[in-house]
Formats: sequence, C-alpha cells, structure tokens
Amino acid sequence: MKKKIKVGVIGATGMIGQNYLRLLSGHPWFEVVFLAASPRSAGKKYADAVAGRWHMDEAIPAQYRDIVVEDASNVSGTVGRCRLVFSAVEMDKKAIMALEEEYADRGFAVVSNNSAHRHTADVPVMVPEINHDHLAIIPQQRRQRGWKEGLLVVKPNCSIQSYMLPLYALVKAGCRVDAIIVATLQAVSGAGYPGPASIDMIDNTVPYIPGEEEKSEVEPAKILGRVEGGRIVPDKSIKISAHCNRVAVSDGHTAFCSIRF
Amino acid sequence: MKKKIKVGVIGATGMIGQNYLRLLSGHPWFEVVFLAASPRSAGKKYADAVAGRWHMDEAIPAQYRDIVVEDASNVSGTVGRCRLVFSAVEMDKKAIMALEEEYADRGFAVVSNNSAHRHTADVPVMVPEINHDHLAIIPQQRRQRGWKEGLLVVKPNCSIQSYMLPLYALVKAGCRVDAIIVATLQAVSGAGYPGPASIDMIDNTVPYIPGEEEKSEVEPAKILGRVEGGRIVPDKSIKISAHCNRVAVSDGHTAFCSIRF
Amino acid sequence: MKKKIKVGVIGATGMIGQNYLRLLSGHPWFEVVFLAASPRSAGKKYADAVAGRWHMDEAIPAQYRDIVVEDASNVSGTVGRCRLVFSAVEMDKKAIMALEEEYADRGFAVVSNNSAHRHTADVPVMVPEINHDHLAIIPQQRRQRGWKEGLLVVKPNCSIQSYMLPLYALVKAGCRVDAIIVATLQAVSGAGYPGPASIDMIDNTVPYIPGEEEKSEVEPAKILGRVEGGRIVPDKSIKISAHCNRVAVSDGHTAFCSIRF
Amino acid sequence: MKKKIKVGVIGATGMIGQNYLRLLSGHPWFEVVFLAASPRSAGKKYADAVAGRWHMDEAIPAQYRDIVVEDASNVSGTVGRCRLVFSAVEMDKKAIMALEEEYADRGFAVVSNNSAHRHTADVPVMVPEINHDHLAIIPQQRRQRGWKEGLLVVKPNCSIQSYMLPLYALVKAGCRVDAIIVATLQAVSGAGYPGPASIDMIDNTVPYIPGEEEKSEVEPAKILGRVEGGRIVPDKSIKISAHCNRVAVSDGHTAFCSIRF
Repeated sequence: MKKKIKVGVIGATGMIGQNYLRLLSGHPWFEVVFLAASPRSAGKKYADAVAGRWHMDEAIPAQYRDIVVEDASNVSGTVGRCRLVFSAVEMDKKAIMALEEEYADRGFAVVSNNSAHRHTADVPVMVPEINHDHLAIIPQQRRQRGWKEGLLVVKPNCSIQSYMLPLYALVKAGCRVDAIIVATLQAVSGAGYPGPASIDMIDNTVPYIPGEEEKSEVEPAKILGRVEGGRIVPDKSIKISAHCNRVAVSDGHTAFCSIRF
Repeated sequence: MKKKIKVGVIGATGMIGQNYLRLLSGHPWFEVVFLAASPRSAGKKYADAVAGRWHMDEAIPAQYRDIVVEDASNVSGTVGRCRLVFSAVEMDKKAIMALEEEYADRGFAVVSNNSAHRHTADVPVMVPEINHDHLAIIPQQRRQRGWKEGLLVVKPNCSIQSYMLPLYALVKAGCRVDAIIVATLQAVSGAGYPGPASIDMIDNTVPYIPGEEEKSEVEPAKILGRVEGGRIVPDKSIKISAHCNRVAVSDGHTAFCSIRF
Repeated sequence: MKKKIKVGVIGATGMIGQNYLRLLSGHPWFEVVFLAASPRSAGKKYADAVAGRWHMDEAIPAQYRDIVVEDASNVSGTVGRCRLVFSAVEMDKKAIMALEEEYADRGFAVVSNNSAHRHTADVPVMVPEINHDHLAIIPQQRRQRGWKEGLLVVKPNCSIQSYMLPLYALVKAGCRVDAIIVATLQAVSGAGYPGPASIDMIDNTVPYIPGEEEKSEVEPAKILGRVEGGRIVPDKSIKISAHCNRVAVSDGHTAFCSIRF
Repeated sequence: MKKKIKVGVIGATGMIGQNYLRLLSGHPWFEVVFLAASPRSAGKKYADAVAGRWHMDEAIPAQYRDIVVEDASNVSGTVGRCRLVFSAVEMDKKAIMALEEEYADRGFAVVSNNSAHRHTADVPVMVPEINHDHLAIIPQQRRQRGWKEGLLVVKPNCSIQSYMLPLYALVKAGCRVDAIIVATLQAVSGAGYPGPASIDMIDNTVPYIPGEEEKSEVEPAKILGRVEGGRIVPDKSIKISAHCNRVAVSDGHTAFCSIRF
C-alpha cells in the first residue's frame, strides 16, 4: 500500500484500545495519527497514561510511547487529522452512543468495538465476509442523521464471530438452517480488565456472562438481515439458543455449534 | 438400619476405590469387611498401601487404616465374608470383565464403577430412579452364565448421570423427546489419577476426552431400554450428540443439554 | 460455656465479615447479637444485603439470614446490645481508625481485623499465644484516650501469623535469633474481593503484594515488643526480610522461613 | 557464521529434545544433521515419531519433519556425520551415563542436558560466563577415560541457572558471600512431560520437587570450584539452602535469593 490510511483511536488506554494499538502497530494499511482517551489520561504521553495498566504480552509499541493523549470528548480538537476513528471507549452505554455519534457528525467514519450501537436500526453490525452489502445503508444513515461525511458501523460480539462464517457458508451453499444451539467456553480477556475475580475462576467455570446469551441470540439475525427502508431488517428465520460459560483461560474463545436443518 | 450390609471393595487403593471408601465411611447401610487390590498392595495395611497416593481431601478414614489389603485376584480368599462387592479395579478391559465375572460366579453381587461391562447385553447399566426394572434381567443373567447367587450390574458414565434424570422426567411426563445436544465441561478428576498433565490444562480447555462422546451417545439408549429375551434392548428413539470438554476444574462436571421435542 | 459472650460484627457484609460469620456460626463462646455495615446494606435483611456477593463455600448460616443489618456509622444505635465487636469494615484507613475509636469510646471492646491501627503505638497487635501480656496496656490506652470501658486491639497481617508462633517458640527456648528471611506464596483470598484479576493470575505468579513486605517486616517487632510508657516498644533485634508472592490459589498462605541465629 | 557446526540430537523426540530442535531451528551457528531417539521412534520420520506428543507452542520446524529418526543406541551408525551431539535422552541414570560415555568414546563432543553426569568428578557443569576455565579438564578427562577426541560436559539444574550469574558477579566483584537462601516457584514444564498431574496443581502449590533442593545445594559449589588433579574440586565456602516449590505456571521459573555476606 503506497499511502497509508490515517486513523485515530478513541478509548486508546483501555484494554481494547491497547489491543487496537497492538494490532495497528506495523499494520500495512493504517497509520495512527492520534490517540484519545478520558480526561484522566489526556495531556499525558501514552506510555505514562497506561503505566501500570498495560495488559498486552508485548511491550508498548515504541511509536506510540511519546504520543500525547487527547481528550476524547474534545472532538473539535481532532477534526481534520484523519477521516477514520476506531472506537474502544469504555463508558456507560448512553455516553458511548452520544460520543460515537458526535464523531460521525464531525465527519469521521467511526468503526466501533462497543456493543452500544449494535441494536441501533441504521447502524450495521459488520462481518465483512458476510454482510458487506449492509454498507449500502450508509447514505440513508447520513440522511437520517444529518451527517455529511461521517458514518458509524460496529463489530459484533466476540463469541459469535467464530461461528458466523461457517454458518453463513452453509446458508450460502443452500442449506436451510432452522436452528443452532451454541455452547461457549470464553476466555476472561473477553470481559475487559479487570474482568472476573481470580477467586471466582480458580478451580471453576462460571456458567453466566451478563448479556452474552442475549447478544448471541440477537446479533446473528441482524448480520444475516437485509437493508430496507433505512434500517437493517433482521432475518429471524434461524432460531439461536446460546449457553455461554466463562472459563479460566486468558485468551481465545471456544464455541460448539449444533446446527439443525 | 439395624444391621448393616457387609461389603468388600475390590480395587480399593486407586482413586475410585479411595472415593468408595470416603463415601462408605460412616454410611448408614454398609459395613466394609474387606479391601482388595493388586498384588502390589496385597499384604500391606491399607494406610501403607496408599501412602503417597491418597488423593482425597479428607484423611484416610481411621477404620480402614489397619485393614490388611487382600489380593483381588484371589477370589476364593474372600468368599463367605460378604455377599456384595463394589468394583473399582483399574486394569485393561478384558481383565476387568473376567475378574468381575469371577466374583459373580463365586456368589457375589458385583456393583461396578468400570465401563468394561457397560456394553454387555445382559448387564444392566443402572440409574435406579430410572431403570430399577432392569433388575428383572438378573434371573436370566444367572441362568445364561451359570451363576447361582451372584450378579453383575454397572453404573453409567459420570457425565451422563447429571442429565439422565431430568431427561427421564420429561419422557415420563409424556414429552416425546426427539434429540438432545449436550456440551460438557468436565473436571480432571473424572480421568482418574494422574489424569491430564497440568501443562495441558493450565490456561486451557481440552475439547476431546477419548471415548467420552461415544459413551454419552450410547449409554442413555441402554438405560432407557427394556429387558427382552435375556438382554437389555436399547431405546434408540432419542438421538444424542455430545461434545465433551475437559476443563481446569478438580471436581464436578457441568453439562448443557438442549432438548428437541 | 454456660453463657455465651454477646458480640456484634461491624463490616459484616464484606468478604472478611462473611468469614467472621462463617466462623462465629456455632461457635461455643460467642453469640452474634447485631450485624452492621455500610448505609448501602443498612435496613436490609442480611441475606438480601449479601445477595450476589456471598463468597463463602458454605451457605449463609441460617441464623443470620433474617437479621436486619444496622448502619455501622450509627454507633449509638448499638450501644448496650453487647460489649464486644469484631471489626471487618472496609473503608479508607482514616475512616476505619475513626470508626473503631468511636466504638471503643462508646464502651465496646473492639477486636479488629483491619491493618489501620496496627501501627498505633498504644494499640497492641495480638497473637495471644505470644503477647497476651500486651493487654497490660489497656488501662493506659483508656486513660490516654479518655475511654471508660472500651478498648481496641488488632490482629496481625495474615501472612506473618503462620511463622510468628514457631519463631516465638525458638526465642522462648533461648535461641538468639538474629534474622529471618521469608518467602511467601499467598492465596488470592487474602486480597479481599474482588482481589487480583483472573487474567493476571492464570498461568502466573505475581511477585508483589502492595504493602505486604513492609507489614511483614514491621509487625513482628511490635508483637515481640514490650509495654512501656503507655505504648508498645517494638523489639527490633530480629531483622526480617520478606518476599511476598501472590499465587493462583484460592485459600491458604504458604511461608518459607530461614532463620539465622 | 560462514560455515555452520554440524550437530546431532540424541533423545530428540522427548520434551527436552523438542525444545532443542525448537531452539536449533534457524540457529546461526548450528546445523542439525541427525536426530536419534529410542527404538520406538527409530526408522520413523520425525513428524510421525512425535505425532500426538509434540508439546511446543510452535509447529514442528519444517526442516525436521521428514528426517528419519536413528536408533540412539546404535552409536556406530552416527559416527562421522558430525563431531557434536546434544543429549536429551530420557532413560534411567545408569543407561544415560553409559550412552553419553559411548558417544564420547566414539569421538563426539557430548553436551548433555541430563543430570546423570553432574556429579561425575571429571565432567564439568558448565555455565560458560562463569566457569569456561573448567574446560581445561578436557585433556585429563580424555586421558583418564581413554577417549581420543570425544569429551563430555553437562549443563546445571534449570532453577539454579537464574541466580548463578548474579551470585558470581558479586563474588567476582570481591564480595565474600557466606550463604544464600533460595526460594523457588518453578513451572510445571521443568518436570518434563507429563509432569505433575493437573489435579495436584489446580488451586495448589506443591512444596516439594524430588531431588531439586539437593541439586540446588550441590551444583553451585561445583560450578564455582576449580580444576585440580583431574577433577573439579567444589568450592564449598558458600552455604546454600534451597526451598523449591512447583506452581501452576506452564513455563518460567522464579527464584528469590537472599545473600549473606
């Protein structure tokens, strides 16, 4: 790639933001031009802002260490520096929704890791290999919200990512899937930091992850849906029953899917 | 209970044998009158025989410490001391089958924890709340094998025990169960001692337990079957698909069942 | 014991408070007559106050379930109901110190599990088998603080409890101990709830417990000290070097002591 | 390095042998020219020989997959193919000693990972940064044993490697070290495969590793010793007391050393 795409990361100091930076470091397509986080971190060098709470196995990539962190809520300060932001902000749901919308309103393409907007009717939940055509909603999204250049898309829940592709491959191949039953064994990293207390996970599995089974049962329908009338209409023809467990594993989710035709 | 039932435990020094003794200690029905194990342990006091390999959290129950362990293969030596033996011997499958049959032949009621005889047509796999009527096969079992007073019954695989009862309750209530899909998270103790290597279980789950899924898919049919023509005829009307995982938990299996009507 | 000693537990809903209740349930000496905690819990039945955050393996002892929790800061409300309180309050250090002093001022004998007052010169750090004679400071403590009947004593850090007794036995036997070097492997329960994040403990040990090494190096001197001039004068003749590690164990600390004569 | 040094690995299929191959893959100095193991593996391609028991995180390095494994006991078959072998054989102590001596007798420089020869008076235990001068014993070793070109050196116990270098730095700097007290927290990989049973390590630490404390107390003296009269004379001036623990960690030992001057 001759010229890299400039991006900002908002919520860059949390565990998900750290993972974004780990993955963006040396990425062939993207060049990080600003990092933003909460007022607590704003004004500090990134290495200082995450001192004592850097959770990746690898060291902080050198290129980010001395970048002075911006205040994510000061959207004006970042306008013009790039067109794309990855959102990993960790706040309450309403605040996330408002902040992501503000970035989109100011012209940014916002790609969010948060679940906040996954249920918003005109925000597509993207698994590009499956529903890239959902991007057709963007002109309508802009019109409905009065955004000129900005846009907002989100990614799905981590545990469904593993099985959506093979499920889609079956659907695409003509199989009429009636229902899927999923049992997951999910790593603690999925809960962010600090996540589950060690005393709850040592010599144990936890058969409950708040909201996870609901997300697993709703999001696939949206991903498999279609754009119609300015919204994503979910395809509810596949029934999903999910049983989500937390296990004492640091990274990597396992999912067992039984598919009924 | 005024008078306790006298029992012997064969295979008393292994991990399952130790669990038998833990559970029989202070039991209101049973009185242990002899302990038998391999020639390696025979002739030693029980406490000496299990020294360095007692795996229970509780101490060796005092009443067993000084009992001199018998050689399990010397069946004659135990005849007349009781009518019931619990079998927890750990040998290869054929040797287990032969030894358990020999005890039955010598007049013992043999209740076995081993999987060796679970597929034997005239040996019932007992879950008393479900298939106590399978005991009707015992006269035929004796006749077919030339046993006068002895008999042989086995218990099912540990991971299916958890869901057979609610499954049976549904069947009994008139639900026509078509299929069940099971995902298990099974403790390492289920593999006996030493079981899985710690380096395989730390920060990991293992999605494979040799033979476990096959057992889970076959044994329920036998338990739900009927006695006919000197054998247990399995009820294959319920399809079972099992996905068995080992997790880093010491004790206690978890099973998620999805039932299709 | 004919007549039990009535006690109150302040901070009864936290993890340490729960442990107090677990240990006091069925205790031959003590009868719990009130439970107090933060305003958040006050007014609720104990079982409701700890719903979703009861961390003991055993169920909530039945006798405590329906006791309505008091507001621990409303000391007046508890005066006259007993003479002894166990303190397990979890607040910042100054607030703990003030609250425990208020209870003592109102006539209670306060026995505290907190570290807040361990460095207070006229508050003995009790290991009864070693320094019961430190209780001789109580009349002076009362005089200095204007307390009529109340008093305040604390227990030491959990990790030093294991080795103080054998250390003292050596000292008592005439050994002139010059220095001790301690390495600990401490369970996560010692950090309270939630304690260490599971992602930090899985497949790991953590060679740092904030403040623990300092406590381990200071408290033994006070326990081995003597009452003089209205304060406990520490015995600094034994040098202590402590190396404290957190390990992925739920309960039970291990300590290795090397003693130099 | 223009020309790489040709090496063979004996005991190439075990866990230590696998680690040798992992580390030798792409090594700038060494080129592996043969792999040898027990008769069970001999004649198979390496990838087949370790099928189902490859324990490294990385895949089997491609360059080794198709090498046909030799029978390690057939020393003649390997003569002439290289001058250096790394020994990772896992057998009983006497068999290891004899086999390593045979390779040396046939002209190989044998560098062994095994503990078998660590106590042999004319076999140096090498930590090159410390005792490279112990190689001066090689001419005497050859003379005493009638070896023409071969030689035999071993590496020390893994847990002492961490602290021998800083200890030596202190000694070299003129500090008169009188005694060291060591507490270790050792990973399960140090025990080879399968190593500790997971049921023994889950929610636990094990304060005993057979032979480890003895090795830790003896080997440093040899490493710090001097060559004299055809043997390594240990320097026993530093007293060592080691307390070795196994912890539920896959890789990486921790050691706490307290040094007395």
